[in-house]
Amino acid sequence: MLKTSGISVAPLSVPERLLLGPGPSNSHPLVLEALSSQPVGHLDPFYIDLMAEVQDLLRHVWQTSNRLTLPMSGTGSAAMEATIANIIQPGETFLVGIKGYFGNRLADMASRYQADVKTIVKPWGEAFSVDDIEAALIKYKPSVFALVHAETSTGVCQPMKDIGDLCRRYDCLLILDTVTSLGSVPLFLDEWKVDLAYSCSQKGLSCPPGLGPFTMNQRAEEKLNNRKGKVPNWYLDLSLLNQYWGSDRVYHHTAPVNMNFGIREALRLIVEEGLENSWDRHRKNAEDLWQGLEVMGLELHVKEELRLPTLSTVKIPKGIDGKAFALHLLNKFGVEIGGGLGELAGQVWRIGLMGYNSQKKNVEKVLNLFDSELPKFKE
Amino acid sequence: MLKTSGISVAPLSVPERLLLGPGPSNSHPLVLEALSSQPVGHLDPFYIDLMAEVQDLLRHVWQTSNRLTLPMSGTGSAAMEATIANIIQPGETFLVGIKGYFGNRLADMASRYQADVKTIVKPWGEAFSVDDIEAALIKYKPSVFALVHAETSTGVCQPMKDIGDLCRRYDCLLILDTVTSLGSVPLFLDEWKVDLAYSCSQKGLSCPPGLGPFTMNQRAEEKLNNRKGKVPNWYLDLSLLNQYWGSDRVYHHTAPVNMNFGIREALRLIVEEGLENSWDRHRKNAEDLWQGLEVMGLELHVKEELRLPTLSTVKIPKGIDGKAFALHLLNKFGVEIGGGLGELAGQVWRIGLMGYNSQKKNVEKVLNLFDSELPKFKE
Repeated sequence: MLKTSGISVAPLSVPERLLLGPGPSNSHPLVLEALSSQPVGHLDPFYIDLMAEVQDLLRHVWQTSNRLTLPMSGTGSAAMEATIANIIQPGETFLVGIKGYFGNRLADMASRYQADVKTIVKPWGEAFSVDDIEAALIKYKPSVFALVHAETSTGVCQPMKDIGDLCRRYDCLLILDTVTSLGSVPLFLDEWKVDLAYSCSQKGLSCPPGLGPFTMNQRAEEKLNNRKGKVPNWYLDLSLLNQYWGSDRVYHHTAPVNMNFGIREALRLIVEEGLENSWDRHRKNAEDLWQGLEVMGLELHVKEELRLPTLSTVKIPKGIDGKAFALHLLNKFGVEIGGGLGELAGQVWRIGLMGYNSQKKNVEKVLNLFDSELPKFKE
Repeated sequence: MLKTSGISVAPLSVPERLLLGPGPSNSHPLVLEALSSQPVGHLDPFYIDLMAEVQDLLRHVWQTSNRLTLPMSGTGSAAMEATIANIIQPGETFLVGIKGYFGNRLADMASRYQADVKTIVKPWGEAFSVDDIEAALIKYKPSVFALVHAETSTGVCQPMKDIGDLCRRYDCLLILDTVTSLGSVPLFLDEWKVDLAYSCSQKGLSCPPGLGPFTMNQRAEEKLNNRKGKVPNWYLDLSLLNQYWGSDRVYHHTAPVNMNFGIREALRLIVEEGLENSWDRHRKNAEDLWQGLEVMGLELHVKEELRLPTLSTVKIPKGIDGKAFALHLLNKFGVEIGGGLGELAGQVWRIGLMGYNSQKKNVEKVLNLFDSELPKFKE
């Protein structure tokens, strides 16, 4: 009866990589140690306490007091979908600011929840002005506006001044994608009047991928409570998750306990360093990278005042096969840098300095590699 | 600007637990070692090879040749929802066999995808007969029938003889929940003519929770390919995931790479032991547990021929506070056993012997604890 397919695999042996691409980044060794603890039950009193700690720590790095703040049991994309699935009702107008790959993803997701999706678009590498946004809010009267704070596909950091006020004035909820900014770039969710936000574990937090931090404020919660019918997504239903992560601790799904051990340690390390110190470190190392690249005659895709400290897009010089160069760095030196995504495919490299990997020695390493290896790829 | 909430948390220190409840079970130490490797990129050639290995290994433990076999980047519940989200079209009749908690969950999920949900019900602790199922297929003419193979809430293993043939005769797809059977209880998906199945990582596979193995055959794939409109769930959309896990390797979401290191090692260890040997080990240890409990005068909730080797439901004797006893074992001895869920709350304990924890020494430990500690709880 039993078919043995002659499977024989060797024990796992993971090659050593320095991950300087768009994420995942390398994890802090203490996070990996936490991850390798034996699991406990998802209703164990120890774990229940740990959940509360993770929630408090997430509130801190996001600078929010939102009660409903928790890591979704999936990657950042699951948390992204959670903001939409819980908040959008069929037929509602959902406005997305698209200035890169992840804006498109938001639009695709919202269409699956039967939103009437409207978009405002900027070239990949630019940011929206307050006027752009106000004009679109007037034109489309959306009930939800979604914006990407840190566009991993372009390396742009969206200035957030006045946008939250604008959304309140036009009676619209604001969703903010903070996937590539949480823990590493200044974020003030409450001050910015952001209603829902999400992130990931594998970038600024120095943890492996697998959890999607999620938060929603009282305004968003009220909308969820007043929605007609069940949330059309069981796994991401905040009204159910609230019973597990809220005070009731009612079983929803078996939590990924080890990943939560990891993120708790990751967040603790940020507190230990100091959140502002982490922001400053990311800024400083990014500036050193930019300067070093420019000294070599390379050009950055984004103008300085909009640049994201965590992810830099570097123009691939004419005549260079960007993909071959990145593969060379990976195969020969174990260093990963990213290629362009979507519209920027083939045009830029993406160099990430995120979380644990935002270190002076890594800046030097990648600059030295560009210096010594890139000339070999010139025609 | 920055609010420091005076957060100060100590480095993580996880208490030692022997997890003999409904899952998670303890992980194999080599799985935890794999989990703590530094991540690699989700498009790294090494990781691409590893994905193919994980897929092959999953096919083996499920005894299927289904092309679309992969771990969903969420827990078992996400994989459960994936079967429904991809296959159900609004208005279609979805029949669920409910004989425990997880049948109810399937019904809830299907209602969110606008299925016309019908149910057949059995008392918690029993299984469906082929006649029960045939009568319901005739009565409701469902396009999908979902059944739980191993009900974690009751400890019942559903006999699968003839059910797949029946579903084909009545032109209906068969979804099977194998959350508490994969790797530990005989499963022959192809032979049983199961069209879609899902499982979890934290039970028979000896890996922490966080991944949801998923599989669908050609029949199910055809239905997916012919569906009208997009799958109403982006994260679990198999038509997108297929591009990443299939031959194209198109980026969908950042895979939880470390969890995949873990499950690859977990599955490799099952192959190393021999799949049939693993099944036999689970059976033998469960039988020893049942015998030991009965010798002590305790009663099992399920009749022997329907019992699940991985999860045994034990009737709480009259006059005993079952919850207090379980808490005593946890706090005093670090041993977790489960309480009843849903209809069986307060009536049974649930003792799990799953994966790495299905060991003779653990059977002896739990029997000794019942022997020495239970009398202290008698009135």
